[in-house]
Amino acid sequence: MERVEHRACFGGWQDVYRHASSVLGCTMQFAVYLPPQAAHGPCPVLYWLSGLTCTEQNVITKAGAQRYAAEHGIILVAPDTSPRGEAVADADGYDLGQGAGFYVNATQAPWAANYRMYDYVVDELPALVEAGFPATDARAVSGHSMGGHGALVVALRNPGRYRSVSAFSPIVAPSQVPWGEKAFSAYLGEDREAWKRYDATELVKGAREKLPLLVDQGDADEFLHGQLRPELLQAAAAAAGHPLVLRLQPGYDHSYYFVASFIGEHIAHHASALRG
Amino acid sequence: MERVEHRACFGGWQDVYRHASSVLGCTMQFAVYLPPQAAHGPCPVLYWLSGLTCTEQNVITKAGAQRYAAEHGIILVAPDTSPRGEAVADADGYDLGQGAGFYVNATQAPWAANYRMYDYVVDELPALVEAGFPATDARAVSGHSMGGHGALVVALRNPGRYRSVSAFSPIVAPSQVPWGEKAFSAYLGEDREAWKRYDATELVKGAREKLPLLVDQGDADEFLHGQLRPELLQAAAAAAGHPLVLRLQPGYDHSYYFVASFIGEHIAHHASALRG
Repeated sequence: MERVEHRACFGGWQDVYRHASSVLGCTMQFAVYLPPQAAHGPCPVLYWLSGLTCTEQNVITKAGAQRYAAEHGIILVAPDTSPRGEAVADADGYDLGQGAGFYVNATQAPWAANYRMYDYVVDELPALVEAGFPATDARAVSGHSMGGHGALVVALRNPGRYRSVSAFSPIVAPSQVPWGEKAFSAYLGEDREAWKRYDATELVKGAREKLPLLVDQGDADEFLHGQLRPELLQAAAAAAGHPLVLRLQPGYDHSYYFVASFIGEHIAHHASALRG
Repeated sequence: MERVEHRACFGGWQDVYRHASSVLGCTMQFAVYLPPQAAHGPCPVLYWLSGLTCTEQNVITKAGAQRYAAEHGIILVAPDTSPRGEAVADADGYDLGQGAGFYVNATQAPWAANYRMYDYVVDELPALVEAGFPATDARAVSGHSMGGHGALVVALRNPGRYRSVSAFSPIVAPSQVPWGEKAFSAYLGEDREAWKRYDATELVKGAREKLPLLVDQGDADEFLHGQLRPELLQAAAAAAGHPLVLRLQPGYDHSYYFVASFIGEHIAHHASALRG
């Protein structure tokens, strides 16, 4: 693991690391914000999963999350959104291939060789973080758009592994919208049964653990009705008796201005689960 | 004036406008953050001047300033850093020409035709803002690096025009450092007497109004000893009896992670001057 960025920020350190991922078979970067409290002892960790086209940089430069992480003593970890590199399969367009891993383990060629972001996020990255940083094994997960989908999926599929979960503008039902249909067809093939394990609206129907879901969604989001459709998750959660707080935020769009406006409330929510 | 971006942010609006600048003779963009309070009545304005290579986008995406502006009810206005366009003179390199206006009125060819950022920032832009937005004429000014230089210069040269001034990592003595010598030679010519009117360390010696200067500077800033040299301003202010709070912040570099970490304190400082 090699540190490639190291910047003082709100009394702590905003770092970026590069490492060889055995799960993904390529070199990856991830960002770690170490709050001031981490200099004195281990802190719990909030994993942030980013959206289409993003790297680890977007959230650390645009969300303003470090302030709240410093207040609450929480480490923030932000991986990249796909395997990377010239030897890794890619596609034209922003919504498939590099920058668009969708947090699945691909089963179809040519993607299966490297596109195992689910295992990377659930297993390899936390193992690395908990061994290499002053981190406890208290974990929370959040994300934006494709990353909101990822956060909901990894939390719903792994009871006990995350103390809390939240999402901004998530793709709640990828099996039913164009972004998800394109990506899942490529990564998972045409058998839609296989898609259900990566679809929060499907997973919520049978979740063993009723971990409360916190979802913020801007009502001026340009992707709201075509790609995000939070009402599908809402209906499924209601039918399953799964606790969901879905907040429609008036006027907000899909950008990081929206994330920045509410990330403080999300981090407070995670802090009370992680430190409570 | 045409609005080209409009995004909900912390209960207010992060907008970007395009207009034809008569002072600069080209089309310009500037950013305006309208806090929630601006929906109910006029608010005071903090002008933010950015550094080399920046446009109006850097501070609005990276500084996290909107949160504090919303708390205090302050409008934030961020201009671009130079005239722009194919018809506007430019140079190779990031530190002269477009993106590097240095907040002067150029007197030398080919720059004199468009490079009048001093007049734009002091006169044209505030007139536009105060006529077109719910803004009072209570003004403050701050900035980063080249923009910290700009903030100190416009405040020191215009007694009564700004209620408060602050700067992050400013070029306090452009006449004595490579960035300033290159830019001032090009824009103002070789007569160094003309440079003094754009040099905070010179201006502080004769300032009529003793407006307190607040300066934050990271001690791990890669430009500290070669380009910024805050000790030159400190010595001049001490000799002139001009109030200066210079804070050397341990570990911080020249990036927006530094600005983000302390912009809240600066906005609180400006708010007490603007609303006090």
